[in-house]
Amino acid sequence: MADSDSKLKSNSNVKRSEDFNEWYNQIVETADLCDKRYPVKGMNIWRPYGLKAMKNIDKLIHAEMEHTNHEEVMFPLLIPEGLFQKEADHIKGFGGEVYWVTHGGFNELDERLLLRPTSETAMYSIFPLWIRSHADLPLKTYQIVNTFRYETKMTRAFMRVREIHFFEAHTCHADFEDAEAQIKEDLDIMKSFFANLCMPYQANRRPDWDKFAGADYSIGIDCLMPSGRTLQMGSCHQYKTNFSKPYGITYEDVNGEQKFCHQTTYGMSERLLGGVIGMHSDDNGLMFPKLVAPIQVVIVPILFKGKEEPVLKACREVEAELSAAGIRVKFDERDITAGSKYYEWEQKGVCMRIEVGPRDVESGAVMTVRRDNRQKEVVKRAELVEQVNAILDAYDEVLWQCANGNLESNTHRANVIEAVEGKSGILELPWCGEEPCGLAVEERLDVSTLGIPTEEVAARIGGGEVCPVCGKPAVSWCRFARTY
Amino acid sequence: MADSDSKLKSNSNVKRSEDFNEWYNQIVETADLCDKRYPVKGMNIWRPYGLKAMKNIDKLIHAEMEHTNHEEVMFPLLIPEGLFQKEADHIKGFGGEVYWVTHGGFNELDERLLLRPTSETAMYSIFPLWIRSHADLPLKTYQIVNTFRYETKMTRAFMRVREIHFFEAHTCHADFEDAEAQIKEDLDIMKSFFANLCMPYQANRRPDWDKFAGADYSIGIDCLMPSGRTLQMGSCHQYKTNFSKPYGITYEDVNGEQKFCHQTTYGMSERLLGGVIGMHSDDNGLMFPKLVAPIQVVIVPILFKGKEEPVLKACREVEAELSAAGIRVKFDERDITAGSKYYEWEQKGVCMRIEVGPRDVESGAVMTVRRDNRQKEVVKRAELVEQVNAILDAYDEVLWQCANGNLESNTHRANVIEAVEGKSGILELPWCGEEPCGLAVEERLDVSTLGIPTEEVAARIGGGEVCPVCGKPAVSWCRFARTY
Repeated sequence: MADSDSKLKSNSNVKRSEDFNEWYNQIVETADLCDKRYPVKGMNIWRPYGLKAMKNIDKLIHAEMEHTNHEEVMFPLLIPEGLFQKEADHIKGFGGEVYWVTHGGFNELDERLLLRPTSETAMYSIFPLWIRSHADLPLKTYQIVNTFRYETKMTRAFMRVREIHFFEAHTCHADFEDAEAQIKEDLDIMKSFFANLCMPYQANRRPDWDKFAGADYSIGIDCLMPSGRTLQMGSCHQYKTNFSKPYGITYEDVNGEQKFCHQTTYGMSERLLGGVIGMHSDDNGLMFPKLVAPIQVVIVPILFKGKEEPVLKACREVEAELSAAGIRVKFDERDITAGSKYYEWEQKGVCMRIEVGPRDVESGAVMTVRRDNRQKEVVKRAELVEQVNAILDAYDEVLWQCANGNLESNTHRANVIEAVEGKSGILELPWCGEEPCGLAVEERLDVSTLGIPTEEVAARIGGGEVCPVCGKPAVSWCRFARTY
Repeated sequence: MADSDSKLKSNSNVKRSEDFNEWYNQIVETADLCDKRYPVKGMNIWRPYGLKAMKNIDKLIHAEMEHTNHEEVMFPLLIPEGLFQKEADHIKGFGGEVYWVTHGGFNELDERLLLRPTSETAMYSIFPLWIRSHADLPLKTYQIVNTFRYETKMTRAFMRVREIHFFEAHTCHADFEDAEAQIKEDLDIMKSFFANLCMPYQANRRPDWDKFAGADYSIGIDCLMPSGRTLQMGSCHQYKTNFSKPYGITYEDVNGEQKFCHQTTYGMSERLLGGVIGMHSDDNGLMFPKLVAPIQVVIVPILFKGKEEPVLKACREVEAELSAAGIRVKFDERDITAGSKYYEWEQKGVCMRIEVGPRDVESGAVMTVRRDNRQKEVVKRAELVEQVNAILDAYDEVLWQCANGNLESNTHRANVIEAVEGKSGILELPWCGEEPCGLAVEERLDVSTLGIPTEEVAARIGGGEVCPVCGKPAVSWCRFARTY
């Protein structure tokens, strides 16, 4: 596959600092993450390097799910039309963007099947068979599968595609309170999960006009990209009994009464990778957080004629030692210049490199170079694993701080629209809670409504703020931004 | 989900020794592997326990692929009709069993899309972009994805389904010899992979009338089930240039000449799990090989009133110790009788159990009981991990021996049809190599042709054998069996 890279690279001349969106479109291919040349719009090919990064992210999701006692299942992709149409808002929300299977072989099917855009309607036809009494609750399941949406908007690798690598957790509870406790757990999961991606975020309760099709309310997880637009990296939803009623998901309570379950969902997707790419990068390419990086450390030998052998031997030893310590390491032995190796691995987001030359071998040390700031540090072979781990931690910390700095310095709170007009990033204004006022702000500032902050500190209001549109007392802050 | 189990279990009264096929249909649900009540024929739900077993099998596949330098990719599910139809035999073979997507949202698509039944036609449209010169060869890729076949035959969980959990390796080579070397590597992979499943098999070169659609030749991996029928557990295929020509997969050789690649594939599926279930089981339920078992060791406390605490403490210590040693262990603390725990975990194929009672605590030991033969052994706490690992190894060895005994004692070789008539299992007869003679044997014995043995010893012929149908000199042995 090496040759196709160079084909692609020749087109990659846009700088991230100059045109973020175009840079993004190019880097996903030049860094070997995906191939966009598959002949169906919005359906890309996962190349080995990109797939490894995604699977590392999946691993973090699996760990969170296991930790919180969710059980992994896998439901069929195809959903009969009749099942899909049981919940009215849901079909209204998704009806225009599903793919329909109408024929099997040479036969027209008796009932059309659709490719899941999300799995509520597949799962909720079966949950009644799995839940009989309160002893079966809570039911906490999840799956990582591909979903399909016939997107009409412009597609963009990982961010908006038509075949989506998708995570969805679905839970059933005895009552509203227990379902609310699940949403709280989801917010906790977010905290630890996004910390591993070095991604600060805001969890915003979406306004009613933008909630998930069928939800009572929705919380969106918004990350602010360096371009000044936010990217929704996931969401969780309180369904109350909106689905359990049409699908008949009931249980027998302690008094022998039949009751409807309360339900929640939590969804994320390959957008997580898109967000990581956009957030952690510079004009030289990507910077993968250490837990996402397919390669955390690359070893580059510095060779001089006649002195190759001790260097190559030291490289192999360093590789074996780091690998044994659970570090994802690659020894790059290719017969090209060290400089072109640096260039390539920097672009591909390897966290750090280790250079080994004849003098390093003599002094029993290696040279380490961090991807984020190119800081060099001599590390003694005897302290190798410990020092490499310390560098990886420090590197992750810088990624986090940098992203957090971007979020904080580009979140603008004000009492009047004029004060945030023309500002990029996340805009916070007092809000009366009424849809027309929210939409008026959207139109005036050319932004979308992210919704009400769920973080206690950011949410606190009560200093007599008024809605900047209608002048009535504000019931909350509300966030707005331009979004992907 | 506990309650649905008991609902299912009440129907499970067929013994494996009396009606293997019906027993199989029931155990996949009673052992919580899948739920067949999804309302689309042949599309089942993976339940957590079954999915864990499948993912353990996938892990073994990933390890083999990594070891042999195959790179994991993921291609889109949907294939445009035009791409699919480039190779004539392939479309002839699969045309009648693909699902067609005709609409996206409310629009009829310009070109119909099909759900991949296998990914040749998706991948081979892109390989020309990835391969330019001999330096890009061999290209060795694989993916684990879901594929779809509109089966007209009777479906059976894991063995014949319409949405298939599928593994497919696709390779491109400079010439026929290098592609043949890949097939040899595939045969080596089989050897180590199936050893981990404790599954002896035969690799048979299929007759031309049963080769894969588009292949030059196909090798099937056949396992003999206890029912006397064989199950094809996978296959690999030599394509020569049959696909590279219509798809234009060429490379520039060392002399600057454009040449067509030679290609191979290797496929397996969730049938692997079906085969493991069928092969390793008895009237008490499943026996998962240790590397497949979601739970390798279950700990059951033997409780007496007033003496619970030291026992529970010891159980937790044993759990922690085994878990730290990388053993998949479950401590079953449920408030039901020890006997019903034994029953359940035996049925679900846990390799061994550990019983801990007050006297065991006093003597610093535990009681181990193997799933295969219920052999009991007292193990000192000080030797716990070592002994448990030894028992798991011995258990796996018994599974292998038992399955191998079944294969050997039910493989019947003879020179004339009469000698194998009425025999169950795998029948080996001399063959002249002509299709009509093979078909005549099929009809006479009501069997299918598995093909020519690839194992050197089994393949050796030359003692003057003649085809039992036409009487001409035999060119090889040929295997026949009733198949799933």
